[in-house]
Amino acid sequence: MRISELVERTGVPLATVKFYLRQGMLPPGEAVSATRAEYGEAHVRRIGLIRALSDVAGLPLGRVKDVLDLIDEPGGEAADQGQDGGGGLPDTGLPDTGLFDALGQAVAALPPYLEDAQPPFPRAEAAIAAIGQVYDERYAAVAQLERALEAVEAGGIPMTEERLHVYAAHLRAMAEYDLSRMPEDGGREAQLGYAVLGTALYDPVVAALRRLAHQDVAARRLGAPPPPAGAETPKGT
Amino acid sequence: MRISELVERTGVPLATVKFYLRQGMLPPGEAVSATRAEYGEAHVRRIGLIRALSDVAGLPLGRVKDVLDLIDEPGGEAADQGQDGGGGLPDTGLPDTGLFDALGQAVAALPPYLEDAQPPFPRAEAAIAAIGQVYDERYAAVAQLERALEAVEAGGIPMTEERLHVYAAHLRAMAEYDLSRMPEDGGREAQLGYAVLGTALYDPVVAALRRLAHQDVAARRLGAPPPPAGAETPKGT
Repeated sequence: MRISELVERTGVPLATVKFYLRQGMLPPGEAVSATRAEYGEAHVRRIGLIRALSDVAGLPLGRVKDVLDLIDEPGGEAADQGQDGGGGLPDTGLPDTGLFDALGQAVAALPPYLEDAQPPFPRAEAAIAAIGQVYDERYAAVAQLERALEAVEAGGIPMTEERLHVYAAHLRAMAEYDLSRMPEDGGREAQLGYAVLGTALYDPVVAALRRLAHQDVAARRLGAPPPPAGAETPKGT
Repeated sequence: MRISELVERTGVPLATVKFYLRQGMLPPGEAVSATRAEYGEAHVRRIGLIRALSDVAGLPLGRVKDVLDLIDEPGGEAADQGQDGGGGLPDTGLPDTGLFDALGQAVAALPPYLEDAQPPFPRAEAAIAAIGQVYDERYAAVAQLERALEAVEAGGIPMTEERLHVYAAHLRAMAEYDLSRMPEDGGREAQLGYAVLGTALYDPVVAALRRLAHQDVAARRLGAPPPPAGAETPKGT
């Protein structure tokens, strides 16, 4: 398809599509003449992915590019930058398992961005030790957890040992499920895409489902009646 | 304490403290002379809460005020505005249970803000029906779920029936736990604070714990060895 059709199919303005091309976020079309390039379904899907990462997962475009680079060039320049720079998973001395490093770098590409946060992270380290997980204090998510635990303390609902264990057990079971469904076909690239995008894109799904679960439990506990038969709203069972 | 000590204790600039006072987000101090007011620990805590909601939960200050109004004046002006305006839980015909409405309004005060989204929300409605929850299509979280499900589709990892049931079961169990720990003392205000702030402030905790769980499961599955004895990093068991 021509670039004009790509614009129409995706609803993304021409100037934006050209920007994605210049930034290398969208691969060039196939040149069919000196003035025309041909685009395909892969371009439509890639634009959808860029919008999902930026508009829903909330990544700035520079971070979207980091994530795309992780998928496009596993172990390549982006991965190296991640290891040397501040944004990615640092060199932990663990074997370079590729997938594991990419996951760490994907997490570092997700908000909130706390590059200035320096260890120690006493609340987060105590919490992770209590639930017996493997971690490295240089993981971006450790700083993220520290800040989140500070915030619940400031809000007057500090994390308790009991709540930590309840939450961690359920979230770990969800993570086990996620890893168990990692695609076996498609090779390393498909696995990387699954791990990286699954972490980035499912955060908002989890947040929305959690809010709906709170409302559902509250409705049932606090006396909201089941909807009358045939009612349009509220819906449910 | 004087306002200068409040500034020192909280690390929030004087101009910002004065802004919070003007906006009614921080109650006035007790006037002890024509030119001096006295502030207390409640003011320190309230400033900590404002920072937690804005800096960590990511609420714009106008939304922080909405949440504070919910806690300060349950059933008051804020609740009415929420019902009449676009931001809160709409009138569902359910009994006004207070807590339930406040929870809905708190969710509407959390990002992402999708006021322009209009039903139908086909993906979200099908998903919520599949897991058998009570809902109303006008809940803010329904629009949030629709958008999040669109994004995972665009990213090439669409929600499956199986994943939906796994996620929903664990998140519902976490919600049941949360409601079971609602404070019994302190009356309606304490309960409202717990429900509203628990929803708003624990989202980032859940996101960070989920990312750490992914990294832990990946490390164990993908061959990252347990840390050598006595090693400083990586840590864990």
